Amino acid sequence: MPPYHAIEWKNNSLILLDQRLLPHETVYVTLQDVSQVVSAIKDMTIRGAPAIGAAAAYGLALEAGKPFRDLHEILDAVDQAGKRLMAARPTAVNLAWAVQRVLKAAHSPISPDVDAVRRAVIAEAHTIANEEVQNNIQIGQNALPLWPETVTFLHHCNTGALATVDYGTALGVIRAAHEHGKKVMVYVDETRPRLQGARLTAWELEQLGIPYKIIADGASGHVLRHCGVDAVTVGCDRIAANGDTANKIGTYNLAIVARAHRVPFYIVGPTSTIDLNTPDGAAIPIEERSAEEITKIGNEWIAPKGAPAYNPAFDITPAEYISAIITEQGIAYPPFARSLPEMVAKAQAVRSANLGRDLAR
Amino acid sequence: MPPYHAIEWKNNSLILLDQRLLPHETVYVTLQDVSQVVSAIKDMTIRGAPAIGAAAAYGLALEAGKPFRDLHEILDAVDQAGKRLMAARPTAVNLAWAVQRVLKAAHSPISPDVDAVRRAVIAEAHTIANEEVQNNIQIGQNALPLWPETVTFLHHCNTGALATVDYGTALGVIRAAHEHGKKVMVYVDETRPRLQGARLTAWELEQLGIPYKIIADGASGHVLRHCGVDAVTVGCDRIAANGDTANKIGTYNLAIVARAHRVPFYIVGPTSTIDLNTPDGAAIPIEERSAEEITKIGNEWIAPKGAPAYNPAFDITPAEYISAIITEQGIAYPPFARSLPEMVAKAQAVRSANLGRDLAR
Repeated sequence: MPPYHAIEWKNNSLILLDQRLLPHETVYVTLQDVSQVVSAIKDMTIRGAPAIGAAAAYGLALEAGKPFRDLHEILDAVDQAGKRLMAARPTAVNLAWAVQRVLKAAHSPISPDVDAVRRAVIAEAHTIANEEVQNNIQIGQNALPLWPETVTFLHHCNTGALATVDYGTALGVIRAAHEHGKKVMVYVDETRPRLQGARLTAWELEQLGIPYKIIADGASGHVLRHCGVDAVTVGCDRIAANGDTANKIGTYNLAIVARAHRVPFYIVGPTSTIDLNTPDGAAIPIEERSAEEITKIGNEWIAPKGAPAYNPAFDITPAEYISAIITEQGIAYPPFARSLPEMVAKAQAVRSANLGRDLAR
Repeated sequence: MPPYHAIEWKNNSLILLDQRLLPHETVYVTLQDVSQVVSAIKDMTIRGAPAIGAAAAYGLALEAGKPFRDLHEILDAVDQAGKRLMAARPTAVNLAWAVQRVLKAAHSPISPDVDAVRRAVIAEAHTIANEEVQNNIQIGQNALPLWPETVTFLHHCNTGALATVDYGTALGVIRAAHEHGKKVMVYVDETRPRLQGARLTAWELEQLGIPYKIIADGASGHVLRHCGVDAVTVGCDRIAANGDTANKIGTYNLAIVARAHRVPFYIVGPTSTIDLNTPDGAAIPIEERSAEEITKIGNEWIAPKGAPAYNPAFDITPAEYISAIITEQGIAYPPFARSLPEMVAKAQAVRSANLGRDLAR
């Protein structure tokens, strides 16, 4: 594993690698209450759908670690904290999914008292974080048969260890291909406006020793036409029941352009990103962020000072542009309305089996 | 006219607005020999296909203004200067077109001596610059019937007064719509890596009082789907005989995405950009520029220091994605193999008529 961790729980504190400062500075921040976690998610100290889910789970662990007089007080406090965390960013469903999982654990400890709730919350946060890593490794394995021995990827945004708890989703499948001895090359979309590709994915690929070249987002058509790309891999912030997928702005363009060149377009993510309660992409809320994310870099204006900009942080890729969705439970192919519920059911069966095993210990 | 000029000829010098410093600083540089003009074209002090054509023409005027002993010496000098100018940037055909026009004038003055050649060169450079402005105004008029009274454009790169001698091509048609009282809104692709949209187009639209919003290049799909865009307008660096068009990197993506949303995609440029000697897009040389245009902004790295990047400066949009090509001679519709030669023939007829009129004076 590379010598960096996006998220760590240490001495009852949540340690986050401040991703706003990468690739130039590797600074870890120590968070001790839920307000700091909400801020870190909003300001993108931590980002990436699986990573913000795990961070939120640990945010509840921080809240549960405070002193409480009774069971009512701690449950009320974690419920309130859960609401604040879920409101931090609207598009990725993993955030709400992780919070709801932890709250469910909080409300059903075996012996209900303050300490039991506290232990249940922390345990569930650890379980979520550990599952994410295992899921990512499994996703990489599941994807392996898709890749030729020499394989060129085009990748958008950052979906590596930094976007998850470790290993990565769409970047994880690239890493798995590399680790299995395939000859890998990656074209890295720089991913404006926040440059997660140029800053974070390039940095991770450097650590992993995987060859890459950064490209401007607008160059993907030229690259798909001329550079022998075998597959486009991207992550996901929410997959609706019909397969429509919310992901970082620019994903939809890339999907359309991949289709025009008949290059397979893969969505990669854990089943926790599948939201069967959201029927389709039109029902997914799209976060709009500040104009200055586009018009400034650091403190420097790159447009006329105060220029207006429109900055949707995500877009929706309609299911018909998606070749397959790669999850830890297997590869979901169209029609997604049938394959996605199967993946979710498998994941639930695995979790029930694990829970039964834990209880039997 | 706005109070700025990309190109001016004054006191036997070529004055260029240094576009690398916009929108924050308005600095004019004074060039006095052809080497300086070659450098200014290469380093993008001046950019935009029509503008670099006019700048190159004036570069020959600077060369012709030097002292020469005889006719042979001045003709040899301008021929050599022409070669250097044509090699400065490979993709835009206007550069070679303007140089060849001036050289032809140099070689055929009515009374062949040093002074006559000098006068012919300067006169032809002025003619080219003046024609560009008139052509742009005519292009804007020709396009007017295409736009509804309330019209939303999506525009890539910069094609305004800064990219031409004055008025603009793709931005000129937007300006003409505004000046004719239409209610105009422009989504401005920021146009990575050099940010000509965010820096230059936004700046020009501010001067013109036309409402706009900058978007990340990757957001165009989302905007085309949700924001009521009536037309995409872009400029061009070279139009092949079959209609395939080289333009700023990102244009091809935009064309594919516009097609997916059934939004008309217009190429806008003077007939000097049509190169009937180039059969199709595959025959157009694509300039590759330095990785650091992507990985640095100013002196700041926005990617890991020294990160590799692939930076094609242009891409080719195949003719089948182009709804029409708007020129000063009219609107060319598919099949372009028929309509483009008609436009070029019309332009030649106009030039011959003007020449005949001048000679008759």
